[in-house]
Amino acid sequence: MSEDILQRLAEVIEARRGADPEQSYVASLHHRGLDVILKKLGEEATEAVIAAKNPDRDVLVKEMADLWFHALVVLSACGLSPDDVLDELARRFGLSGVAEKAARTTPGIRSD
Amino acid sequence: MSEDILQRLAEVIEARRGADPEQSYVASLHHRGLDVILKKLGEEATEAVIAAKNPDRDVLVKEMADLWFHALVVLSACGLSPDDVLDELARRFGLSGVAEKAARTTPGIRSD
Amino acid sequence: MSEDILQRLAEVIEARRGADPEQSYVASLHHRGLDVILKKLGEEATEAVIAAKNPDRDVLVKEMADLWFHALVVLSACGLSPDDVLDELARRFGLSGVAEKAARTTPGIRSD
Amino acid sequence: MSEDILQRLAEVIEARRGADPEQSYVASLHHRGLDVILKKLGEEATEAVIAAKNPDRDVLVKEMADLWFHALVVLSACGLSPDDVLDELARRFGLSGVAEKAARTTPGIRSD
Repeated sequence: MSEDILQRLAEVIEARRGADPEQSYVASLHHRGLDVILKKLGEEATEAVIAAKNPDRDVLVKEMADLWFHALVVLSACGLSPDDVLDELARRFGLSGVAEKAARTTPGIRSD
Repeated sequence: MSEDILQRLAEVIEARRGADPEQSYVASLHHRGLDVILKKLGEEATEAVIAAKNPDRDVLVKEMADLWFHALVVLSACGLSPDDVLDELARRFGLSGVAEKAARTTPGIRSD
Repeated sequence: MSEDILQRLAEVIEARRGADPEQSYVASLHHRGLDVILKKLGEEATEAVIAAKNPDRDVLVKEMADLWFHALVVLSACGLSPDDVLDELARRFGLSGVAEKAARTTPGIRSD
Repeated sequence: MSEDILQRLAEVIEARRGADPEQSYVASLHHRGLDVILKKLGEEATEAVIAAKNPDRDVLVKEMADLWFHALVVLSACGLSPDDVLDELARRFGLSGVAEKAARTTPGIRSD
């Protein structure tokens, strides 16, 4: 399955943090600092919004990939991992990462 | 592992699309339309940026969870799934979702 | 002319900062703090982007008004005035607020 | 006074729309199209948010100038002028651009 992509991408990001900023985009982002990384997050969010208003779905996929990638770089810069976010989502929605527990869909319970 | 959370959360979102907008936040977002969903994406991105500038990491995790959740709602509204985005990320970074192939880290190759 | 609207709106914002948060939206923003004000700025920017992608120009005008209004509230919260921003724009573009000096348009000089 | 800066800046932007994109940033933005202009608006909004979270007020002034400048470019690209936005703000806040009418501050009337 493709679901561990985020975790492995986070590992790639961690591995490249200390690389040569001339060779690695991740290293160059970390080298330039948190504000530059956050600016990229906002920029990619805006680009995703614009792409979603246009008909080309391939561009939207690419912009969302940019957004998620930079979200992982933000997490890395702040000492967090994608699992921290996924655990929060699992907790909110009553999803367990271990058991194949069905999502809670009890009528009248607004858990989303 | 927690990595299939995104996929299962996407299923929850799909299941709730047609629910009563009074009972389900997902249904209410879809009912109000794409522009409202996109507004939420931009809003949550800004909140993630603000949270990253503050010291409380728990708040950042929650804001990132909000951002990812609304990104999934955008994808759903546009007929896409998280796998579309994860596949794009895997392709870019030379990560295969099937084989346990190590991330490409050949020096001098800037694949990120 | 309508050009002193920003200055007078800034005065309205200053005057309402200390008002009852239950009576005044400006007071309620200041009461809730800088992060809430900044969140509104990001939110209104996203709404302006979305409106610009739609055909209805009246909505775009309203969203831009929201954006500029919240920009003024940000400036107020940070001890700045619209003149600080207008002076910076005048300086960059060779526009003097006093003399009716023509904008510099010397060919080959990229001052914008 | 500096208050007509916006109007004169809008005139500069209009004058440069058709210039050589290699010589004028405004012309290059218009040449690249609305989506690029809107991306810049979102980017500058994020940068203003980040700057407001930092102590250096000079940077905030510069980022706000960037935001307002690109807002004027958006208006130009959409066939609107700053007066359209200023008129909307004047209307909302009971400010007249002609008469030196005091801002409405009647207690209990929440016009902001």
